[in-house]
Amino acid sequence: MAETIGFIGLGIMGEPMARNLLNAGYSLVIHNRSQAVVERLDSEFETVTRASSPREVAAQVSTVITMLPDSPDVRAVVFGVDGDGLIEEMGEGDLLIDMSTIAPATAIELYDALKEKGASALDAPVSGGEPGAIAGTLSIMVGGDEADFERAKPIFEVLGQTITHCGAAGAGQTVKACNQIAVAVNYAAASEALVLGAKAGVDPEKIIQVLNGGLAASRVMELRGPNMISGNFEPGFRINLHRKDLGIIMDTGKEFGVALPVTALVSQLYDSLAANGKGDLDHSALITAIEALANFKVSER
Amino acid sequence: MAETIGFIGLGIMGEPMARNLLNAGYSLVIHNRSQAVVERLDSEFETVTRASSPREVAAQVSTVITMLPDSPDVRAVVFGVDGDGLIEEMGEGDLLIDMSTIAPATAIELYDALKEKGASALDAPVSGGEPGAIAGTLSIMVGGDEADFERAKPIFEVLGQTITHCGAAGAGQTVKACNQIAVAVNYAAASEALVLGAKAGVDPEKIIQVLNGGLAASRVMELRGPNMISGNFEPGFRINLHRKDLGIIMDTGKEFGVALPVTALVSQLYDSLAANGKGDLDHSALITAIEALANFKVSER
Repeated sequence: MAETIGFIGLGIMGEPMARNLLNAGYSLVIHNRSQAVVERLDSEFETVTRASSPREVAAQVSTVITMLPDSPDVRAVVFGVDGDGLIEEMGEGDLLIDMSTIAPATAIELYDALKEKGASALDAPVSGGEPGAIAGTLSIMVGGDEADFERAKPIFEVLGQTITHCGAAGAGQTVKACNQIAVAVNYAAASEALVLGAKAGVDPEKIIQVLNGGLAASRVMELRGPNMISGNFEPGFRINLHRKDLGIIMDTGKEFGVALPVTALVSQLYDSLAANGKGDLDHSALITAIEALANFKVSER
Repeated sequence: MAETIGFIGLGIMGEPMARNLLNAGYSLVIHNRSQAVVERLDSEFETVTRASSPREVAAQVSTVITMLPDSPDVRAVVFGVDGDGLIEEMGEGDLLIDMSTIAPATAIELYDALKEKGASALDAPVSGGEPGAIAGTLSIMVGGDEADFERAKPIFEVLGQTITHCGAAGAGQTVKACNQIAVAVNYAAASEALVLGAKAGVDPEKIIQVLNGGLAASRVMELRGPNMISGNFEPGFRINLHRKDLGIIMDTGKEFGVALPVTALVSQLYDSLAANGKGDLDHSALITAIEALANFKVSER
C-alpha cells in the first residue's frame, strides 16, 4: 500500500497534482489557505485528511510536498508563524519536496535548515503548466541528495514524465531558472523575426515554416508561433508568472555574479506588457511589445 | 542536355555550388575577382568557359547566378563600372538569380532595374553554410515572380534541399534576415542560461538535456550547445559574417519602421567580440561575451 504524504498548496497546479497522487493510491494529508479546494478533495476522496496548519501536516507524515506561488510563501509554510511551521515537526527520516518555483538561494536555505533538524529537502520545480499537471506529464527538475531523489522517485513518476536529478540542493531551481531564460529570450527572437518579416510584407506562416526547418528553429516558435501571428494569447503560462520567474533569475544572477543583459531587456519588455494591462495573457504575447514599438500588428496585416 | 548558365562569385560558398552544377551536367560561364579558382575549375571541367567581365558572362547565357559577399558587391556586378555590368547584356527572357545575402531593399532595386530592361531577378539567399554548399543541401529562400521561381527550380534542386518561394522580390532576403535574427537571439538565450547555470554550480550538460526536452528547446542549443560548453568555436559560420547580416537586419528594421531592441543588443555583443579579436570564431562564441561579463568560463568550471 502506498504511503500517506502531506500536500500543501492546492492551486491551479497543486490540485491536479494532488488528484493524480490520490488516484495512484496515495493517501494525502492536505492543507491550503483557500478552503474550497480542501472541501472538494475531502468530499471526493476517502483517503484525504485535512490539517489546520503546516505543522499539523508534518506531525502526521514523513514526506511533505509543497506547491506554492513564490519564495516567501514556501518560507512561511516551512518556518511558520508562532510555531505552526512544518519545521517544528520535521526530524530524522522526514523529507520536504518543494515543487514550487522559487529562488535557488531559498531552496538551499530550506535544505540547510532541515538538515540541521536531521530532516532533508529536495527542490523539484516543474515545467509543463496546468495541462502537464493534469495529464501527469510534467518535467521535474530536482536538486538535493541522491538518496532523497531515489526515495521521491515513485512520487515524481506519478506527477511527471521527464524527471532529472540536476545536482545538489538548489540545482533544480537553478535549471528551472535557466529554462525560463531560454523560453523568454527565444520568444523575443521569434517576436522580432516575425514582426520585421511581416511588416516588410512577407507571409509570417512562410517565416515560421522556413525558420523551423533549420538552425533558427525553436520549440516556442513551433508550438506558439501560429498563435503569435493570429494574435491568440489565451494562457497557457501567464506573463505575470513569467515575470515572477524573471525576478528570481535576475536576483540569482546578482547573487552568483552573472550579468544577464539580454534577459534583463526581455524582462523589461514583459514589465511593459504588465503596465499595459496584459499580465494575464500568455507569455507568447511578448510579440505585442515588439508590435507596439513598430506600430504594426502581425495579425491585422 | 542542361543549359549553360553564368556563375559569378566563386568563393567559399560559390565554388562548391558551381561544382555541384557542373557535376549535374550544367555548362558554366564563370567570372571571379580572384583567378586561382577560375583556373582550377577551367582545368578540371571541359564544360567551363571563362569570361573577363560580368557583361561578357551575360552576353553568353540567359541565366546568371551571383554569390557575392555583400550588397555593394552585387550592385557592382550588376550595374558595373564603365559599362561592364551584367545589366548591359540583359533583356527579354534573361534571369538573374542572386544567391548572396544582401539587403532586401537592394534585392528590390535590382529586380526593378532588370524589369525595366525586360529581364527579371530572383533573390535566393541560402542557409546551411559551407557544408551545405558542398553537400548540395542548402536551404534556399526565394523572392520574386512565380514563373521565374519555377524556371529556376531545377537549378535550386541541384544546390539545395529545402527550397521555399517566400513571396515577391525581396522576400527571400527578408526571410533570411528573420532567420539570422532568430539564430543570433537564440544563441543569446542559450549563452545566458548556460553561464548562469554553470556559475551557480550545475553541470551544463544537465542544463542542455533538460532544456532541450521542453518548451525551452532550440536547434542552436541542440547542435552547438556541446561545443559552447567545451569552448570549441571552430567555424561553422563566422561571427564577422553574422555581424554583416545583423547590419543588414538593423538597416532593414530602420527602413520598415521596426525597432528591434533585443537583436540590437545581441548585435552589440557580437561587435564587442569582434573588438576583442574573435570575429573569425563561430557565431556560437557569443557565449564568451556573457562569460567575460561574468568573469567565468563554462569550459573551465
